[in-house]
Amino acid sequence: MEQKHESSKTAGKPIRCRAAVARKAGEPLAIEEIVVAPPKSYEVRIRIICTSLCNSDIAFWKMKEPDGQFPRILGHEAVGVVESIGEDVEGLTVGDTVIPSILADCGECADCKSNKSNQCSKFPFEISPWMHRDGTSRFSDTNGETLYHFAYISSFSEYTVVDITHITKLDSTIPPNRACLLACGVSTGVGAAWKAANVEANSTVAIFGLGIIGLGVAEGARIRGAKRIIGVDVNPEKFEIGKKFGITDFVNSKDCGSKSTSEVIIEMTKGGADYCFETVGIPSLINEAFACCRKGWGKTIVLGVDPPESQYNISSLVMLHSGKSIMGVLFGGLKPKTDIAMLAKSYIKKELQLDGFVTDEMEFEDINKAFNLFLEGKSLRSVIWMNI
Amino acid sequence: MEQKHESSKTAGKPIRCRAAVARKAGEPLAIEEIVVAPPKSYEVRIRIICTSLCNSDIAFWKMKEPDGQFPRILGHEAVGVVESIGEDVEGLTVGDTVIPSILADCGECADCKSNKSNQCSKFPFEISPWMHRDGTSRFSDTNGETLYHFAYISSFSEYTVVDITHITKLDSTIPPNRACLLACGVSTGVGAAWKAANVEANSTVAIFGLGIIGLGVAEGARIRGAKRIIGVDVNPEKFEIGKKFGITDFVNSKDCGSKSTSEVIIEMTKGGADYCFETVGIPSLINEAFACCRKGWGKTIVLGVDPPESQYNISSLVMLHSGKSIMGVLFGGLKPKTDIAMLAKSYIKKELQLDGFVTDEMEFEDINKAFNLFLEGKSLRSVIWMNI
Ligand SMILES: [Zn+2]
Ligand SMILES: [Zn+2]
Ligand SMILES: [Zn+2]
Ligand SMILES: [Zn+2]
Repeated sequence: MEQKHESSKTAGKPIRCRAAVARKAGEPLAIEEIVVAPPKSYEVRIRIICTSLCNSDIAFWKMKEPDGQFPRILGHEAVGVVESIGEDVEGLTVGDTVIPSILADCGECADCKSNKSNQCSKFPFEISPWMHRDGTSRFSDTNGETLYHFAYISSFSEYTVVDITHITKLDSTIPPNRACLLACGVSTGVGAAWKAANVEANSTVAIFGLGIIGLGVAEGARIRGAKRIIGVDVNPEKFEIGKKFGITDFVNSKDCGSKSTSEVIIEMTKGGADYCFETVGIPSLINEAFACCRKGWGKTIVLGVDPPESQYNISSLVMLHSGKSIMGVLFGGLKPKTDIAMLAKSYIKKELQLDGFVTDEMEFEDINKAFNLFLEGKSLRSVIWMNI
Repeated sequence: MEQKHESSKTAGKPIRCRAAVARKAGEPLAIEEIVVAPPKSYEVRIRIICTSLCNSDIAFWKMKEPDGQFPRILGHEAVGVVESIGEDVEGLTVGDTVIPSILADCGECADCKSNKSNQCSKFPFEISPWMHRDGTSRFSDTNGETLYHFAYISSFSEYTVVDITHITKLDSTIPPNRACLLACGVSTGVGAAWKAANVEANSTVAIFGLGIIGLGVAEGARIRGAKRIIGVDVNPEKFEIGKKFGITDFVNSKDCGSKSTSEVIIEMTKGGADYCFETVGIPSLINEAFACCRKGWGKTIVLGVDPPESQYNISSLVMLHSGKSIMGVLFGGLKPKTDIAMLAKSYIKKELQLDGFVTDEMEFEDINKAFNLFLEGKSLRSVIWMNI
């Protein structure tokens, strides 16, 4: 990894740099010169090394106003280097390699102190357009217009400002174009298999939706020694992609004939999968996942959050009387400050595969290519290099 | 406990004895002379020592045909002594003290072999009018009319025939008028706290419905050292009853003013209870229980099965994205053959309270008094002695 000397010349001053600004829903990002204010108390300013494009960036980029908020700097899977620190920042210094995380970890609230929760009570999860503490922005364009933040990260910019509760220090021996994946999608999947479900060796797993989260679940289950990992998707090409992450069987949910997907899976597994993961967020899929998890001990893990506004219904809770459980978690149940580092170690030990998730790498000025590849279904993760 | 010599004179022959027969929905049971056939293969015939009256007996007694089936011998919380054994019965001998259990434990299927399930696949839970294996009855009246079984037990009879998969051998140092409680309601509650939820010390618990199952949950949570056990019921008298089983706080769900029950509990617990138990089976209560279990780690356990035909809906599964889980279990997740004995030991060690659940004891011929006390809300458990 390149090591630049972080200059004390910029500390305390606004930085002019380039950002890819989403000016309007669904329109190509504009690479513009913007102004990034210095970090305030409990904040750090980060030079982004590279960032990858996640489904949620796409979802919020597509979202029309007033739900979508523009002009905005999207991006939330990134690795960066601390350029300067605000007041009251402890444990981080200029030059530290860090990963911003979508979940906060304040270290002080009941949730952050508990090993059972990753849902900080002080800074609850939301996709906010502002900084956490003072509800303002650190970004403006050269006309002085405010630019919105995204998910407290906004990594589609050469520099960004992030609250320290969202910062995880990183062992810098992991390449940044792999480490950035740990910030959201892949970790959500692996975490769901490891922490939320606690997948056991020789178990059977069904994964509804083979996007990045679903493939992350497969990878997590593969490492745990699951003997059968069934992928469910409407796109049969996903089977080939999934095989390298441990998918052993594929069910095309549009091609089950007179049977439902759950009936097919119950037959294949002679009774149901030990663990079912729903990664899409569609109510009917949640019902199917729950229906085909094994009576007596089956666990269904709900990971899908798109569309975020939808209300789901689980009917026939009578089924619950068969010893099954269903739960939902954010970020796979991972606690960012400890578990991202744990995943990075697993990659370094050559257990966790990350390379296969990266389908493209490109320069920052080509970021719209990453959007196009994603929309065409041609990418899993595109890594975008800032090169400054 | 009285010890009668089990006579080999009756083995292999029909026994004439008394039973309390439910002839018609909602009408008093008739104490009649009936004929109990000898046990077939894998069956034992039991002389009932005492039996208690459970909510499900009442529910199926009230149920009109064709859902209700008459004439029937109800009863399923009992202790008995093996009078004779059929072919292929191993591990049980004449004179053994036993508890029949509502769940089968065949010891051979994947569920019975797993420590994660109590849902035998070979003999799934159902409220059948017949014996498990050959689908016939062992009961007839003196006119030769067939009498239906109930839940594979039918303990409102001096003698009954039970499949060995439903038989648990009992340490006979526990009095039968306490041991019988372990067959259903109390165990379901205690088991839910111990096995399904695994309640931790110093945790907070909310229990929706303070019937026998809810009080059993409280007792289980009390023994585990829960620091706060909130009972929810529409009958404020339940608070006094509940105190001896560890209930520390009471919420009258009809008396929450402009707030919902869940809002009141969230306020009381500053964020929600660690464990919520729904013991009634009403969809709106399940929603309330789920709503007030703690984000990040809250578990909701659904135990209510009445009315058995209802379909439940959990709306706003979006809430699941807050790290909560919901599960349903039968018999509190207990495995009958090992866990009933474990509860009996706990009673003998003076940990588990059972005495307080017994509000009345009576002779068999007064069984209808037990029904009346139950219907008037004046009893928790009435123990009925056979005295033969
Ligand atoms: Zn916190
Ligand atoms: Zn993401
Ligand atoms: Zn079995
Ligand atoms: Zn019962």
